[in-house]
Amino acid sequence: MKTAFLGLGRMGQGMAHRLVEAGHDLNVFDLYPEQAKSLVEAGATLSPSIAEAIVDSDAIITMLPSDGVLEAVVTSAGGLLESMQEGMTHVMMGTHGIGIVRKLTTLHTEAKQVFVAGHVLGRPDLAATGQLTIVPAGPTDTVERLQPIFDVLGKQTVVVGTDPQSSTAVKIANNFVLGAAIETMGEAMSLVRKLGVDAKLFHKILTNGLFGAPAYEVYGKMIAEEAWDSIGATAIIGLKDMNLALEAAEAAQVPLPSAAIFRDRLLGAIAHGEGELDWAVAAREQARGSGLE
Amino acid sequence: MKTAFLGLGRMGQGMAHRLVEAGHDLNVFDLYPEQAKSLVEAGATLSPSIAEAIVDSDAIITMLPSDGVLEAVVTSAGGLLESMQEGMTHVMMGTHGIGIVRKLTTLHTEAKQVFVAGHVLGRPDLAATGQLTIVPAGPTDTVERLQPIFDVLGKQTVVVGTDPQSSTAVKIANNFVLGAAIETMGEAMSLVRKLGVDAKLFHKILTNGLFGAPAYEVYGKMIAEEAWDSIGATAIIGLKDMNLALEAAEAAQVPLPSAAIFRDRLLGAIAHGEGELDWAVAAREQARGSGLE
Amino acid sequence: MKTAFLGLGRMGQGMAHRLVEAGHDLNVFDLYPEQAKSLVEAGATLSPSIAEAIVDSDAIITMLPSDGVLEAVVTSAGGLLESMQEGMTHVMMGTHGIGIVRKLTTLHTEAKQVFVAGHVLGRPDLAATGQLTIVPAGPTDTVERLQPIFDVLGKQTVVVGTDPQSSTAVKIANNFVLGAAIETMGEAMSLVRKLGVDAKLFHKILTNGLFGAPAYEVYGKMIAEEAWDSIGATAIIGLKDMNLALEAAEAAQVPLPSAAIFRDRLLGAIAHGEGELDWAVAAREQARGSGLE
Amino acid sequence: MKTAFLGLGRMGQGMAHRLVEAGHDLNVFDLYPEQAKSLVEAGATLSPSIAEAIVDSDAIITMLPSDGVLEAVVTSAGGLLESMQEGMTHVMMGTHGIGIVRKLTTLHTEAKQVFVAGHVLGRPDLAATGQLTIVPAGPTDTVERLQPIFDVLGKQTVVVGTDPQSSTAVKIANNFVLGAAIETMGEAMSLVRKLGVDAKLFHKILTNGLFGAPAYEVYGKMIAEEAWDSIGATAIIGLKDMNLALEAAEAAQVPLPSAAIFRDRLLGAIAHGEGELDWAVAAREQARGSGLE
Repeated sequence: MKTAFLGLGRMGQGMAHRLVEAGHDLNVFDLYPEQAKSLVEAGATLSPSIAEAIVDSDAIITMLPSDGVLEAVVTSAGGLLESMQEGMTHVMMGTHGIGIVRKLTTLHTEAKQVFVAGHVLGRPDLAATGQLTIVPAGPTDTVERLQPIFDVLGKQTVVVGTDPQSSTAVKIANNFVLGAAIETMGEAMSLVRKLGVDAKLFHKILTNGLFGAPAYEVYGKMIAEEAWDSIGATAIIGLKDMNLALEAAEAAQVPLPSAAIFRDRLLGAIAHGEGELDWAVAAREQARGSGLE
Repeated sequence: MKTAFLGLGRMGQGMAHRLVEAGHDLNVFDLYPEQAKSLVEAGATLSPSIAEAIVDSDAIITMLPSDGVLEAVVTSAGGLLESMQEGMTHVMMGTHGIGIVRKLTTLHTEAKQVFVAGHVLGRPDLAATGQLTIVPAGPTDTVERLQPIFDVLGKQTVVVGTDPQSSTAVKIANNFVLGAAIETMGEAMSLVRKLGVDAKLFHKILTNGLFGAPAYEVYGKMIAEEAWDSIGATAIIGLKDMNLALEAAEAAQVPLPSAAIFRDRLLGAIAHGEGELDWAVAAREQARGSGLE
Repeated sequence: MKTAFLGLGRMGQGMAHRLVEAGHDLNVFDLYPEQAKSLVEAGATLSPSIAEAIVDSDAIITMLPSDGVLEAVVTSAGGLLESMQEGMTHVMMGTHGIGIVRKLTTLHTEAKQVFVAGHVLGRPDLAATGQLTIVPAGPTDTVERLQPIFDVLGKQTVVVGTDPQSSTAVKIANNFVLGAAIETMGEAMSLVRKLGVDAKLFHKILTNGLFGAPAYEVYGKMIAEEAWDSIGATAIIGLKDMNLALEAAEAAQVPLPSAAIFRDRLLGAIAHGEGELDWAVAAREQARGSGLE
Repeated sequence: MKTAFLGLGRMGQGMAHRLVEAGHDLNVFDLYPEQAKSLVEAGATLSPSIAEAIVDSDAIITMLPSDGVLEAVVTSAGGLLESMQEGMTHVMMGTHGIGIVRKLTTLHTEAKQVFVAGHVLGRPDLAATGQLTIVPAGPTDTVERLQPIFDVLGKQTVVVGTDPQSSTAVKIANNFVLGAAIETMGEAMSLVRKLGVDAKLFHKILTNGLFGAPAYEVYGKMIAEEAWDSIGATAIIGLKDMNLALEAAEAAQVPLPSAAIFRDRLLGAIAHGEGELDWAVAAREQARGSGLE
């Protein structure tokens, strides 16, 4: 398939490499063209503008760092809305909020363009190896048509609905469940530590019991070992994720107290200068509030 | 070993059967002697009083339904405190709070008796098949001496400390982590449902991803299918567990906001007449508060 | 009226003095008889036992420091339940929980004795000057008969129901509203301080505006001036009050998240060694969690 | 003083009338010129554009309905940033968030224009009668120069700082304290009602005691009487206020759990179709969650 790929950050580069290596005819674009270097070497074409990147594309994938950049890429002069022909397809794969997704759904639909949200679960290492889980939502026939792309990028695809916001909901809710698990482990470990139990031992019991899953294995270990420096997502990124959850909760009119708690915890950690540590550092803020530090 | 077993409820019967079948010389006692029927048939001796049950015991196991009953069994006239000789060992295995555990630790120690908390993780079906996880805490030599008993009752033993309250902390914290996971799943599923996602599909994504553990598999399924009738622990028992967590948190001086949230959620469910349904019904209360019912 | 007064702590002494000075025929009792010295000088009679104190009493007032002491005074051998004749009246005026109040209501009623809860709003200084607000609940005719006593002790009496627990509800809810106001002021003052506003100035604006009431004037000033040493009620007493609120909330099946938050805040303060400072020190814990200290 | 007034909604009209009646030379502008009718009759001049409205102004007051409109008025082509000469003063008096205030502070400063935040406490009826409380923050000499304007608009002026965001902090925190008081009253009234106490009676006790202030008198009455139809601010506006509080809390790095609770409560009310009722309807959502409806 002829594919355009806009946004060559860490996630984007890994995904674009998968596509070019799988034989897709790939045009790439980034505000910083030097990001495209290794992709061009691998066979992709670097386009000087969005408009040129998307010519004749079967799919235009965006993997952008923020709602603001995404909105600019779509609505600016020379952006997608202006440049896409009727019937062309924008597949948004970055992490974005319900508000912008609803807005783009309306705009693309009004312009008779097709919009699919194809959020992914997984970090750059999984992106680079095609091990993502992809949870697309959009018009059924388009989503089916995109399956070869998803097959290259992910280990599994679960279609979650026909309205793009359904994909966004799954992405955001998954991150929320993870954040709440980190909060809970932090609280529990402060509790057992103050009652004489080694946190690593408690972690072993948890994960040998009802909680033998990566969320608890990876983050529980980090918390038990106070290894905040091995950074996956920072506290500041975690805060952004919780804000996305709370924005979605407002849009859906769903009280979400566990997200509010973890958001406050991350704010406390950031207030103590720990915003650039892994978001598991929330557990340290919990320990501090319990008089453990 | 010569063992006395006090308290023949569902958990206690399963555990006592394991012991008698493994060849332990077992005296049993319950306020309701008819509870002992099948154990006597299996070879146990029914004692008419606590005092007689514990004569010459190497270990006296209690598996009692509440802090109040436990306190009565230990401190009443004719109870353990009066009847145990110096050096004898009380192994408390039921679910109890930090307050009573601290109190019994003091009382037994003053009486030169030995006190071990040997809390178990797992429900009656695991108790009956010896698949419990046992997390004992107490004097090291005693805990080692009790290992043959633990080997019969559990699939693994993790010694968590030398102070009995450490065992209690692990038991209570494990239940708290489970309760918080139920709360979080309830919140997340209300969120995705209101944004067009099928709850069962979301559950599949969660458990195929970072949350492939029994806590999320079993309870997530129950929530996604709204199957509150397949009762493990009821909302009222869950409330008791959260109260134990909050009591422990107060004793340890640890703020525990996630426990408070789930406690409030369970209270709301109980206020709506759902106290006797499975505690996963908390998710229904969340859905109701989100305007879903 | 012939009145017995049991419990001569700070509140009790002030109240008992009011009664004896108003001409009541007063028998007093306390586990520590030396507490009665100034009352005896003022004309009260010190009784050596509960049984003797209450002989022929028109009203037996208890002003006791905890649920445990109250329960002992009522249910022990030689206690009120045994000693009161049918038709005699126990007026409980101390701060106690819904659980014990419900229990005593049942016990006294079964014994054909009369039980009134006559909780008071106000501290020892108001007790000593008869400026309390009294919120009794109990059988209507008895409450009316007790009015002369309430007139001596308080500046106003508001009868809140016929079931004693209604009085307890008002007492506990009033303390809860106060605690939540302290929490809120603490949060707000951390917020404005970090955005460049002097806390005293903010306090002035609040109390000149919608919040010109003693709760905000007194506690807001304490928080703005960080004057935790001018102790009214300590953080530990405040924690007890919040626990009473949460116990009542459970009995009534009412989620009470604001009480849970303030309870956690007080726990944090206590964990930082501030349990004996005024409960307004909760605001310091909030400031600490915001990185202000 | 020669004054420009941009934004003639309910608050703006009342304030502009005060100024023209006090003899100020007033140019007014609104996207909907018909809003200016009565002001023109009173002597104000209706300008066809922002640029013309502000010519030679000593002060340019904005009273705009949202952050988005404010940003457009300042940064659009022909907006304030372009049209104001160096040294001219923009006095922002509407309710806006910390983010936009920080942004405008930077933009105006870079353009060598003066920016003052002059938030007001009080509703349209107080605006129309000059009874507002004004809490300005900005360069000291400018704020002093503006005092004659503040004297016409408000009954008192409290200068809260030299950085505009300090004014915003006070405005937002004041609303937050009010929201939290509503939440607390709702919780307390559900509690006492379920324990047999009439809500109106409890309200009387509160306001005769430590809570005799307008916030508790007005909103407590509304809650006790379930009079959600006498609308001051709606639940949807209240949600906006809580979002402003949470945005400020994030900017200041201050955990604000009481705001999160009230936000969730309002969301629940909105989910039940009550978004256009007075924000005190949050108490009804609390009652519903307690099984009272």
